[in-house]
Amino acid sequence: INTSVIQNGVHGNGVHHVNIKGALYPTKSKSRRQRWEVKPSEMANNTLNPIRAIVDGMKLTPNPDKPMIALSIGDPTVFGNLPTDGAVLQAMKDAIDSQKYNGYAPSVGYLQSRQAVANFYSCPEAPLEAEDVILTSGCSQAIDLAISVLCNPGDNILVPCPGFSLYKTLAVSMGIEVRLYNLLPEKSWEVDLQHMESLIDEKTSCLIVTNPSNPCGSVFNKKHLQEILKVASRHCVPILADEIYCNMVRCSSPSLASLSSDVPILSCGGLAKRWLVPGWRMGWILIHDRNDIFGTEIRQGLVKLSQRILGACSIVQGALERILNNTPQSFYNNTIGFLKSNSEICFSELSSVPGLNPVMPSGAMYIMVGIDMDHFPDFKNDVDFTEQLVTEQSVFCLPASVRRHHLSSHC
Amino acid sequence: INTSVIQNGVHGNGVHHVNIKGALYPTKSKSRRQRWEVKPSEMANNTLNPIRAIVDGMKLTPNPDKPMIALSIGDPTVFGNLPTDGAVLQAMKDAIDSQKYNGYAPSVGYLQSRQAVANFYSCPEAPLEAEDVILTSGCSQAIDLAISVLCNPGDNILVPCPGFSLYKTLAVSMGIEVRLYNLLPEKSWEVDLQHMESLIDEKTSCLIVTNPSNPCGSVFNKKHLQEILKVASRHCVPILADEIYCNMVRCSSPSLASLSSDVPILSCGGLAKRWLVPGWRMGWILIHDRNDIFGTEIRQGLVKLSQRILGACSIVQGALERILNNTPQSFYNNTIGFLKSNSEICFSELSSVPGLNPVMPSGAMYIMVGIDMDHFPDFKNDVDFTEQLVTEQSVFCLPASVRRHHLSSHC
Ligand SMILES: Cc1ncc(COP(=O)(O)O)c(C=O)c1O
Ligand SMILES: Cc1ncc(COP(=O)(O)O)c(C=O)c1O
Repeated sequence: INTSVIQNGVHGNGVHHVNIKGALYPTKSKSRRQRWEVKPSEMANNTLNPIRAIVDGMKLTPNPDKPMIALSIGDPTVFGNLPTDGAVLQAMKDAIDSQKYNGYAPSVGYLQSRQAVANFYSCPEAPLEAEDVILTSGCSQAIDLAISVLCNPGDNILVPCPGFSLYKTLAVSMGIEVRLYNLLPEKSWEVDLQHMESLIDEKTSCLIVTNPSNPCGSVFNKKHLQEILKVASRHCVPILADEIYCNMVRCSSPSLASLSSDVPILSCGGLAKRWLVPGWRMGWILIHDRNDIFGTEIRQGLVKLSQRILGACSIVQGALERILNNTPQSFYNNTIGFLKSNSEICFSELSSVPGLNPVMPSGAMYIMVGIDMDHFPDFKNDVDFTEQLVTEQSVFCLPASVRRHHLSSHC
Repeated sequence: INTSVIQNGVHGNGVHHVNIKGALYPTKSKSRRQRWEVKPSEMANNTLNPIRAIVDGMKLTPNPDKPMIALSIGDPTVFGNLPTDGAVLQAMKDAIDSQKYNGYAPSVGYLQSRQAVANFYSCPEAPLEAEDVILTSGCSQAIDLAISVLCNPGDNILVPCPGFSLYKTLAVSMGIEVRLYNLLPEKSWEVDLQHMESLIDEKTSCLIVTNPSNPCGSVFNKKHLQEILKVASRHCVPILADEIYCNMVRCSSPSLASLSSDVPILSCGGLAKRWLVPGWRMGWILIHDRNDIFGTEIRQGLVKLSQRILGACSIVQGALERILNNTPQSFYNNTIGFLKSNSEICFSELSSVPGLNPVMPSGAMYIMVGIDMDHFPDFKNDVDFTEQLVTEQSVFCLPASVRRHHLSSHC
């Protein structure tokens, strides 16, 4: 029965060996390993989390007399003051009770759940069908798949600065170059379009736009989004729109796709932030491609990549339709109202400190604070400032970077 | 505030541009893309699912008069006759009600859940601590991380044949060569050790052992596992033990790690099969490294890789301790008893057909059937046989490969 052929009839015992085809191979025992030597792969070594790299090197010893207040991570659940809605929890329990969602879902997600996401985000300017939706293990896997399908090693991608660290973590581990384009604090963190455009070359395979922004809390207006699209269109660069904070805003903010006539867009999102359940790992990619530039190839590429690990938990998938359709509007409004009043408190308190220049956020859950270092001669830079804030007050903000003197904190 | 330097002060409009450092750059507009040309990456193109490749090319038109019976995939839930235990469902609902598991878990999983897995699988010969456990999105992601941390592009890995297709899918997409070692049907699918050993060279960075086996349903005895370990030890090759079907057996079958004195082992498992909830995507890696060959480097590599997408759903993680500790022994016994009686029916019915040679499985959920093609002159090969079985009887088994005349089916 066994008809396969031994490819390499060599044994490590120094004895010549006749393989089943009768050929004689000299031993190559020297080419075998003689001792243990197991090293992590390049990819593992190159998987660096820039936040960890900064934070791990910091001296963070909170003041023992004050409780720690960690404003450094984007988890809305940590303080217990932002619970998800009861309808969301009930949808999950019903999905469990139904016993319909224990088996394997298709690798891209249940059709019904994809349909529910499509219906939820579809609009006349950017219509969506179930087949335009791929469900993933959190928005993080959506970003991973989007970068993986668009970019080859040696390509480069454009990433906002300051920005969410995962883009760099993923890209660098895949051998993709990261080019940071500046956001301008003096223009409410709008993109420095000239700078962004100057970074594009023929190896640029993806432009990442985060709107609303982590860590800036900024929200781009329609005109600015159109300007970004023009740059992408001029140079034929597809966009990865990280819109995980969409609708968590206090101003009108269209989706990028609703404004795009040609630029194809992979919009990444998920339940994490708006529904306040980041641990559930439910994300999605919305494929917007009205001019058929991605074509079936990119779609099939995404499907193939989704088969690697079959990301999203079937129970959350089973609950998704009801989570999207039954969560009351008041829940969303309450979250936004709560975040608004928190940011107002942060903003007004911080504004009263000479040398601190907070930028009032209009969405998401973050506030960026500029530090005028001249006012703080005792501190070397924003990292040092952050360390001292922990030591003295047990309050932990993220230093936005060493060179730009900014702190980011979750409000 | 913004003190970063423009890296490349070039614009695409054909006009020379003075960057903020004052240097003059010629435009490079020719090196920009002039038209849309978005192609899937090499990685997406190289992500091939061998089962899909076979099945997609098959003519599968079931007999309209007979209901389809799909015996082709390893999903125990499809027929509804193997429900999970009530204790498992209750643990999930309690995790939801507690509202303690909505936020981000650590990327490697909650400490308490890792501890529960460690306690469940720890034994005196192969003790485990919480830090030896990494939780993942299904066993698939465990395999992905294990291969990713051990192997570089250009390395090779040894994979059983016949075997589970995911190993090849993942490895090929990462540029890792797959070398198939034969399993011997006449020896209850034991490894052809000579063949396996002959494939090892200095670029062999991982030996994958699947025990119990998908698709063979075979279970290795202690002696055979020791022989496999000897080969790995002789050539200093670490093992990825895919033990997702461990304990789903009708005979004694130690874990590889419990027999290893030196070979470091990443044992991959999960809730999917034994607890009958594959859709929940809860898997794990157990790190066995008593001789400190992996050292901290491989462990840290796994931690870093786990930060890419933060795999496992926090609700399932929250329920994990109770799922492992509260599921009654009778549930496991019933599953095994049910699979046993099903395999006996399959085996005895198939044995009565001249030319079909089923190999009685001793574990997992599969049975392999040899086809003596001389008895079936009307069929070209196992793929043709499978097609006709669907056309006539609406029964779908998987052709184990085109060259080896075997069918695999889920019992
Ligand atoms: C901008 C942005 N994108 C993506 C994510 C990741 O989302 P998820 O938890 O769904 O993977 C975050 C989380 O903080 C984020 O801030
Ligand atoms: C041998 C083997 N390993 C791993 C898996 C994947 O398990 P999971 O569904 O937990 O990713 C399977 C599923 O069929 C399998 O048969």
